[in-house]
Amino acid sequence: MKKIYFTVGPTQTHPQLGKYLNYGLAKGIYSISHRSKGFGELFGNTVASLKKLLNIPEGFHIFFIGSATEAMALIIENCVKDKSFHFVNGSFSKRFFQTAEELRKHPIKFEVPAGNGFDFSNVSIPNDTEMVCFTQNETSTGVKLDMADISKLKAKNPDKLFAIDIVSATPYASVDYGAIDCAFFSVQKGFGMPSGLGVLVVNDKCIKKSQMLQGEGINIGSFHNFPSLLKSAGKNQTPETPNALGIHLLGQICDNYIKYGLEKIRKETDAKAKLIYDFFDKHNGYSPFVKNPTWRSKTIIIIETPQGSAPVMEKLKEKGYLVASGYGEFKEKHIRIGNFPMHRIADVKKILKILK
Amino acid sequence: MKKIYFTVGPTQTHPQLGKYLNYGLAKGIYSISHRSKGFGELFGNTVASLKKLLNIPEGFHIFFIGSATEAMALIIENCVKDKSFHFVNGSFSKRFFQTAEELRKHPIKFEVPAGNGFDFSNVSIPNDTEMVCFTQNETSTGVKLDMADISKLKAKNPDKLFAIDIVSATPYASVDYGAIDCAFFSVQKGFGMPSGLGVLVVNDKCIKKSQMLQGEGINIGSFHNFPSLLKSAGKNQTPETPNALGIHLLGQICDNYIKYGLEKIRKETDAKAKLIYDFFDKHNGYSPFVKNPTWRSKTIIIIETPQGSAPVMEKLKEKGYLVASGYGEFKEKHIRIGNFPMHRIADVKKILKILK
Repeated sequence: MKKIYFTVGPTQTHPQLGKYLNYGLAKGIYSISHRSKGFGELFGNTVASLKKLLNIPEGFHIFFIGSATEAMALIIENCVKDKSFHFVNGSFSKRFFQTAEELRKHPIKFEVPAGNGFDFSNVSIPNDTEMVCFTQNETSTGVKLDMADISKLKAKNPDKLFAIDIVSATPYASVDYGAIDCAFFSVQKGFGMPSGLGVLVVNDKCIKKSQMLQGEGINIGSFHNFPSLLKSAGKNQTPETPNALGIHLLGQICDNYIKYGLEKIRKETDAKAKLIYDFFDKHNGYSPFVKNPTWRSKTIIIIETPQGSAPVMEKLKEKGYLVASGYGEFKEKHIRIGNFPMHRIADVKKILKILK
Repeated sequence: MKKIYFTVGPTQTHPQLGKYLNYGLAKGIYSISHRSKGFGELFGNTVASLKKLLNIPEGFHIFFIGSATEAMALIIENCVKDKSFHFVNGSFSKRFFQTAEELRKHPIKFEVPAGNGFDFSNVSIPNDTEMVCFTQNETSTGVKLDMADISKLKAKNPDKLFAIDIVSATPYASVDYGAIDCAFFSVQKGFGMPSGLGVLVVNDKCIKKSQMLQGEGINIGSFHNFPSLLKSAGKNQTPETPNALGIHLLGQICDNYIKYGLEKIRKETDAKAKLIYDFFDKHNGYSPFVKNPTWRSKTIIIIETPQGSAPVMEKLKEKGYLVASGYGEFKEKHIRIGNFPMHRIADVKKILKILK
C-alpha cells in the first residue's frame, strides 16, 4: 500500500521531488564546483526565490547551514556574549535555551507548562538581555505564538535582538521582519524536502554584533561564524562545500510555491486545520491537546489519545496514513499531525473518517 | 555533449547515483522520522558498511556531520584545550591550522612550500602538544603523506592524539588506525556523491578528551560535541535531523565498492595515476607540479601549465572533459585532475590523447 506521511517532519515529500532530484542529476548540479559560476547562479536563484516567497526585506542575509539545530548554536555564538532570554513552552524552545547553556552563556528562561502559550504583557525582560529567543511554533506541543504579540514586545525592547525559530511554520507563518533580527527553519517540514539543510535569515544588526564579539576576542565559531558566512554569501558561495542538492531542491520548490501562490497555500492550511480541530473538538475519545484556540498551531496539530497513541497510529497506518507519536513524555499520550502544503484536503478527510 | 567531470570534488557522480536516489524516494527514506526504527536500521547499515569497506577497527565511532570543514572545527573544539600542531603544505592543511586559531586555541605549524611533503625525522613536536594534525592528501597541491611515516611519528609520540584529513584520498588511502585517533572525509570525492555530508571517525581517546574538557567547563560546542554525537550514535541516531539522503547514498555506494573490491579500486587508481604522471613527465609543455615521485598523490594529480590553465581546460571541455583549475594562487598556473573510482581508464586515455 502507498504510504502517505502526515508526520511532523521529515514528512510527505513534495510531489515534484523526484522530478527535481533527477533534473539536478541530469544538469550536473551534483558534480559542479561550489566555486563555479554555475553554483553561484544556483545559490543566487535560490536566495532570490526564498526572499520573494517569504517576503524577506533588504538588509537580511540568507545563510545555508546543516540544520535548524545548528542555527540555534550559531545564533547564540554570534549574537550573545553572555545573556539570552528564552520563552520556553516545550522541548524545542528548551533546546534553544540549553544550547546557550552548553555554549557557556548565562541564559534566562520564562517557562510555561506544555500546551500553553504566553501572556507577553506579564513578562519583564532584564535590561542586560542581549537577545530574546522565541519558538514560533512548538513542534513538541503544537502551540504557536502570534507574530503581532512578538512585534509589540519588540516595540518595548527595541535595543534587544529578537531571534525566532520558524522551523515547523515556514512557509505558512508570516514573519514581521521589522521586529525580528534573525529567523531560521529547516526544509523537511513545510518544503517537503529530504532533511539536511537549514536556513538562517539574519539582518545587519546580528552581523554587527558578531563582528563586535569577534573583535573582543570572543569565540564565535570558525567556518560558520556570521562574518565568514557573510563573506561567502557575498560571492554566492558557502564557506564549506555545501549541500548543493538541497539548495537546488529548495529553489525549485520555492518557485513552485510562488507559482501556486503562498496565500492559496495559507488558506488551504487554515481550511485543513479547521477541519481537524473541529473534528476533534467534537470527538468522544480524542481531543486537541492545546485548549486555548488562539494558541493552536495550524501546521502541527496535537491530539490527546487517552487510550494510548499506538492503537490510533496503527489504525491509520492500516489505511496507509502515518502520523507522529507524541514528543518525549507525551509519546504514548498524543498523536501529532503535520499540516503542510503537500498534504491534500482529500487525505485529511479520509484520516478523519478513519478516526470517526 | 555529455560532460564527464574529472574535477577534484564535487566530481563525476557514481554511475548508480540516479538509481540510489530514486530508490530512496520510492522507499520513503526522505520521509521517515530520524527517530524511527527504519532510520536506525539505515544508520546502522551505513556505519557497518563503512567500517567494513575502510577496515575501521573496534573502538572507533562514526559520526555523520555536514562537511569536512565542520570536522576540523569539531576536532579542535573537542580534543584541544590549548595547543595543536599542524603539518602545513597547502591551503587545506592551513585551514585546519587557522580553524584552531579562530577557535581561540594556540596552534603551532610546521610549514613547507607548496608541492612539498615532509621529512618527519627533522621535526620536533613540543611536549605540551595535545594533538598532531595531518592532511594526508593536500587537494590544493597534490601532495600525499605516507601513512608509514605518520605511524612512525606516532610511535615516538604515543601520548599525543593524531588527527588526519583523508578528504580527497578516501576510500583509496589505507589508514593505520593503530596510529590515528581521528580521521575525517567528505563524500563528494571518492564516493561520487552530492556534497553536504561529512564523516568523522573518532576513537575512545578522543571521546575521553572531550569529556575531560567538558568537565573542566570548557566550551566544546553544543549539539555536535563528541559526547552528544556519541550518545545519539549509540542509538543509531544523530543529535539533529540529519542528511538521511546522504547517509542512505553513502551506504549504497559502500556496498557497491565492497562488492567490486577495494583492492581492485586501488589497483585501478594506481594504474590511472601512473598513466597520467608518465604522460606528463614526458610532455613538452606540461609537467607534474609535485617533483618528488614519493610525494605525488594518486587521487589529486596536479599539472603545471606554463601557458595558463584556461586554454588547457577549454581544449578538454570541447571534448566533454572537465578538470579543475589550480587552487588559490595557482589558479592560472595549474590544472588539477581528480582520479577517483568513478573515473574510467578509457576516459583517462582520451584526456591524454587530447593533450598530446
